[in-house]
Amino acid sequence: MSELSVNPDLANERLNATFDVENLTNLIYGGPEKVKRRRQIHKVASEDPFYKKLKPWSYCSVEEQYENALAKHNHIKESIDKLELNGFDDLYYYKSCVTPHEPGPLDVHYGMCVTPHEPGPLDVHYGMFIPTIEQQGTAEQKEKWLASAYSEEIKGTYAQTEMGHGTFLRGLETTATYDPKTKEFILNSPTLTSIKYWPAALGKTTNHCVVVAQLFTQGTCHGIHTFMLQTRSLVDHSVLPGIEVGVIGNKFGFGTNDNGYLKLTNVRIPRDNMLMRYSKVLEDGTYIKPQNSKVSYGVMVYVRSMIVKQAFSALAEACVISIRYSAVRRQSETVPGGIEPQILDYQTQQYRLFPLLATAYALYFAGNYMSTAYSEGSQKIEKGQLEELPQLHALSAGLKAFTSYAASSGVEVCRICCGGHGYSQASGLPKIYVSVVPACTYEGENTVMMLQVARYLMKCYKDKQQGSQLPGFVSYIAEIPQKRSCMDEHLSFSCLVKAYKHRAARLIEAAAKQMQSLIQSGSPAHEAWNKSSVQLLWAANAHCHLFCVQNFVENIERSSGDSRTNEVLKAVCQLYSIHGILENLGEFIHDGFLSGQQIDYLQKAMFKLFEIIRPNAVALVDAFDIPDQVLQSCLGRYDGQVYQALYDYARMAPMNQTEIHSTYYTHLRPLMNPLTSNYSKL
Amino acid sequence: MSELSVNPDLANERLNATFDVENLTNLIYGGPEKVKRRRQIHKVASEDPFYKKLKPWSYCSVEEQYENALAKHNHIKESIDKLELNGFDDLYYYKSCVTPHEPGPLDVHYGMCVTPHEPGPLDVHYGMFIPTIEQQGTAEQKEKWLASAYSEEIKGTYAQTEMGHGTFLRGLETTATYDPKTKEFILNSPTLTSIKYWPAALGKTTNHCVVVAQLFTQGTCHGIHTFMLQTRSLVDHSVLPGIEVGVIGNKFGFGTNDNGYLKLTNVRIPRDNMLMRYSKVLEDGTYIKPQNSKVSYGVMVYVRSMIVKQAFSALAEACVISIRYSAVRRQSETVPGGIEPQILDYQTQQYRLFPLLATAYALYFAGNYMSTAYSEGSQKIEKGQLEELPQLHALSAGLKAFTSYAASSGVEVCRICCGGHGYSQASGLPKIYVSVVPACTYEGENTVMMLQVARYLMKCYKDKQQGSQLPGFVSYIAEIPQKRSCMDEHLSFSCLVKAYKHRAARLIEAAAKQMQSLIQSGSPAHEAWNKSSVQLLWAANAHCHLFCVQNFVENIERSSGDSRTNEVLKAVCQLYSIHGILENLGEFIHDGFLSGQQIDYLQKAMFKLFEIIRPNAVALVDAFDIPDQVLQSCLGRYDGQVYQALYDYARMAPMNQTEIHSTYYTHLRPLMNPLTSNYSKL
Repeated sequence: MSELSVNPDLANERLNATFDVENLTNLIYGGPEKVKRRRQIHKVASEDPFYKKLKPWSYCSVEEQYENALAKHNHIKESIDKLELNGFDDLYYYKSCVTPHEPGPLDVHYGMCVTPHEPGPLDVHYGMFIPTIEQQGTAEQKEKWLASAYSEEIKGTYAQTEMGHGTFLRGLETTATYDPKTKEFILNSPTLTSIKYWPAALGKTTNHCVVVAQLFTQGTCHGIHTFMLQTRSLVDHSVLPGIEVGVIGNKFGFGTNDNGYLKLTNVRIPRDNMLMRYSKVLEDGTYIKPQNSKVSYGVMVYVRSMIVKQAFSALAEACVISIRYSAVRRQSETVPGGIEPQILDYQTQQYRLFPLLATAYALYFAGNYMSTAYSEGSQKIEKGQLEELPQLHALSAGLKAFTSYAASSGVEVCRICCGGHGYSQASGLPKIYVSVVPACTYEGENTVMMLQVARYLMKCYKDKQQGSQLPGFVSYIAEIPQKRSCMDEHLSFSCLVKAYKHRAARLIEAAAKQMQSLIQSGSPAHEAWNKSSVQLLWAANAHCHLFCVQNFVENIERSSGDSRTNEVLKAVCQLYSIHGILENLGEFIHDGFLSGQQIDYLQKAMFKLFEIIRPNAVALVDAFDIPDQVLQSCLGRYDGQVYQALYDYARMAPMNQTEIHSTYYTHLRPLMNPLTSNYSKL
Repeated sequence: MSELSVNPDLANERLNATFDVENLTNLIYGGPEKVKRRRQIHKVASEDPFYKKLKPWSYCSVEEQYENALAKHNHIKESIDKLELNGFDDLYYYKSCVTPHEPGPLDVHYGMCVTPHEPGPLDVHYGMFIPTIEQQGTAEQKEKWLASAYSEEIKGTYAQTEMGHGTFLRGLETTATYDPKTKEFILNSPTLTSIKYWPAALGKTTNHCVVVAQLFTQGTCHGIHTFMLQTRSLVDHSVLPGIEVGVIGNKFGFGTNDNGYLKLTNVRIPRDNMLMRYSKVLEDGTYIKPQNSKVSYGVMVYVRSMIVKQAFSALAEACVISIRYSAVRRQSETVPGGIEPQILDYQTQQYRLFPLLATAYALYFAGNYMSTAYSEGSQKIEKGQLEELPQLHALSAGLKAFTSYAASSGVEVCRICCGGHGYSQASGLPKIYVSVVPACTYEGENTVMMLQVARYLMKCYKDKQQGSQLPGFVSYIAEIPQKRSCMDEHLSFSCLVKAYKHRAARLIEAAAKQMQSLIQSGSPAHEAWNKSSVQLLWAANAHCHLFCVQNFVENIERSSGDSRTNEVLKAVCQLYSIHGILENLGEFIHDGFLSGQQIDYLQKAMFKLFEIIRPNAVALVDAFDIPDQVLQSCLGRYDGQVYQALYDYARMAPMNQTEIHSTYYTHLRPLMNPLTSNYSKL
């Protein structure tokens, strides 16, 4: 594509913003120094000819996507040394620049890999395989495997999920039975449903994996444990005896990864291949229990906090694309024969996009909170201070679910807001969607996560009934309820937050009472739980929503930005809070908490906020500072040259490289001009 | 896959249903004779070895998907004669059996093609190209083109949408300028945005198209008209001079279709190539206006009624898959160590799936209504009775938007309800989603459609204010409003429908008053409209929702089924009505129409209905009688052998046909065991 100037509509938008974009970018990414470093890295990555010569992913077959991902991995590995990239931020950002929508964070320090978008085939090796050895292996085991793992001689994955079991780990069926005669474990997939299914990179890439299996020794099952298993030869990559391994076939997205299946038939591994830092099996088969079973709590919190950040990224990217495109796209007419307005001027478009933009900011602050809370929390755990862990754990589960759902559904709205062109891979939006939506399922299915939150809330409610003090954020459950909202036409943040508290507290109480009444009328506890679970879901959702609103408000109130930036952010935060009430109005007014008059204030305020945000909409997405190379979108380009880009995208399609497609000779010409058949009646 | 018996859980579900599935199937498809015929056709199609030997679509590249679609087209054409298939129902059903999720109805009689799922490359030839000639061509023009079109010597498409213009047709920029010297039109794409973009089969398949362009003659623009254009040679398929044509590149779905772009540079076509049945350009360039400009009204209604039916199909298919799978899938435990329940027993799963099942039935009845209304309406149009046309037109626009959105979002919920496996193409669900979701955009973008409904409603409201009688369904706008709902714990249909009427009437009034107040305070009409458009959207949506509820209720009340079938359908209809209120509660209680007590009745009733529907859920989806061959889903199989199917799907993946993938030699082995690099810090 030739060099073009910025689309004048987009240039105008940037002129008319009421605040300085750079200030907001600095606020988002932690100061001008960090922003400068991001941009340096991006520049290097964008100028590297290696990435430019790769075929665009949407024109690749699944096998080509996989092949490109491996090629990129190798090139990234080389480049990191050459470019002297260091530290998590540098590496993460470099990787996200060169694998658009695939910025899988690989973080040995924190010990886990989350795959926000399309994961590379080696991500799980660095993100889960190595960390598992580091955390669960003995000193000898680390000595034995880590060096070859780092040199990629052995490449591994984490084989947990089975065809029949995902989130519910206790149900896993793979067995590891200890044989004291040979001092080996015998691994088996005893049922069809026990076949490992979904682990990343299991199909073709890796030659090792950590298998999660039920440990049997001396005739007793001791629950799930982890075992090191070699699946392929280090000499020629052939599959070892007793093992059937392959890819699981094509998916909605994730083409870069060879998610695989694994069937085990009497595969023997040495006793030493059980990761024995915590639990042990002695030579004679005696089982030694772990000292502390809560070790993995912190890791889960970390993984979920990463998902919140990635939910933000996905929604932010989608907002950049759809809002820039809506400023460029002109359509229809409001006055007959008049100029066609930018579609961003239609109130209906603002109604769909601006609340999502506000949500992206809310998710950004929620992600920040979770990272900080995780770091502080893990320091406390180190010191043995575990009081806040349940609250943090519940919040991380809830925010994982709340934000992954908000981002996924929001990305699709952004896509549909781009009309027909949103359906083309050229928009970049389908890829973002298929990359973020599995976050609703992996690392804990969202409904299950929300019910974990609910279980915690029910405990809090009981504590409150028994007069105990509730910790930190959940203390609102014990506050004396207002009957009527304090809201007037000024819609202060304080009254808005109180409304969310009221709603959450009411729904928590309603769910608790429903449970209690079922139990009193003779239902067993598990049945009462199930028969209240939709109400528990509502309560948990309201709790998470309250957190996002309150946390956004607190960030705004202590913001260090300049006054014009703060003013815009304040409007965005108000929109997030007000729109959330209007979208869930029934839950707020079921008990008459808000009057008709107050609802009218909220509606009027929402429409007014659209007008305040309108001139700043493009600047608010520009502030995310996401380069074109990451967006990979013809519609979301910084220069707004949308139509030229769409035309170029079409022309480079593989099917356009010949004037006449081969099917003309094989399928079309042979049937031209036959006797007219009944088909014509169709 | 080997022959297997039915999964016992699924067999049990079928035993425990309280009604006879066959009765409901007969009710849905118009009696036992029609059901028998469907099944005969399905049997023939499913036994045809041609279809069995095609590679499953999800393992095909986009080019292979296109090639397979052409091969199928040719085979279908042959088969129709051989099998003596006749009439729209036969042909449509045969085609839907052999092109799963691609049942593009080809209906010359009604003159339009709607592409519900993946359209074949020749669908638009039969569905739009030929009908356009039939309807808009003169006798000579039909004589000239139709025979070769039916014989497929000429293959055409309908080139309307441009890069810069979709729903707003007046904005199209392609020009057709008459040159009286040569008696030709000169076709041009004067701007980048005027390039035709998206027309089906334009890229590689077709050699002709109908171009929609602005007609210029004698220095005046006369608006959009249709022109016959040959794009490729009939001898060798080469592209003709002045024409640039190709595919637009890969999309979210629709891999079977070569949607294309077309750029025209001074392409001259004879004067006779303008379709001149209505408007004419004489030899000297004189323009003759059409007699009647409302001809296409009926066609639009037809197309939209087809979209309603297809929205039903998509949602019904997704419900079949997710409900059968939820009966087979067992997960987690309610009692520690107890048997894992079917996930369909979880109230949270019921809360997500049963309202969608109810919606599928509501959409089914809405689609039926629209077909009948269209047939009756077109007879009246023939007789010149045009009174009901505006109401029908508004309803068709509204239901197109309401149902395509309900189905699209519902299909994704069904997919996510299947957990991780829902993300695999093996589930069939991603394909259904990407096939139905463009219906929110094509044939009139949903927001634009809803605003058309709103325009009609505003007119009705004005008529009411002026004391005019309102026609048929919209007469509720003029009913004297109740202040309080009549609902008691029995939740009669009559009170439920009245609640929907109240909500719609209130929102219509609120939008109208908002507009009037803006106009009174000096806003120009177009600005008042835009500033009220979100409220107009709410009003239109409530209107369409009311229609679906009321129409469902009316069908239940006059149902010809047996009593046990009716009882279940009644529960489904109640759930649809009650759930719709609870999901939009704010709109129903904003003005205090429902009391807290009444809301409690509704909530209790919803949970109670889940228990009534639970034993019938599988039977209710079985009744749709959708064969496995159409579902193409490992999770939704009639026999419930889900895990065997998933295992088989994985094993047949192309990447599993060799033990070691070629990338091992090219990408993995070369980098094994290098010096440990900084990458390990990632």
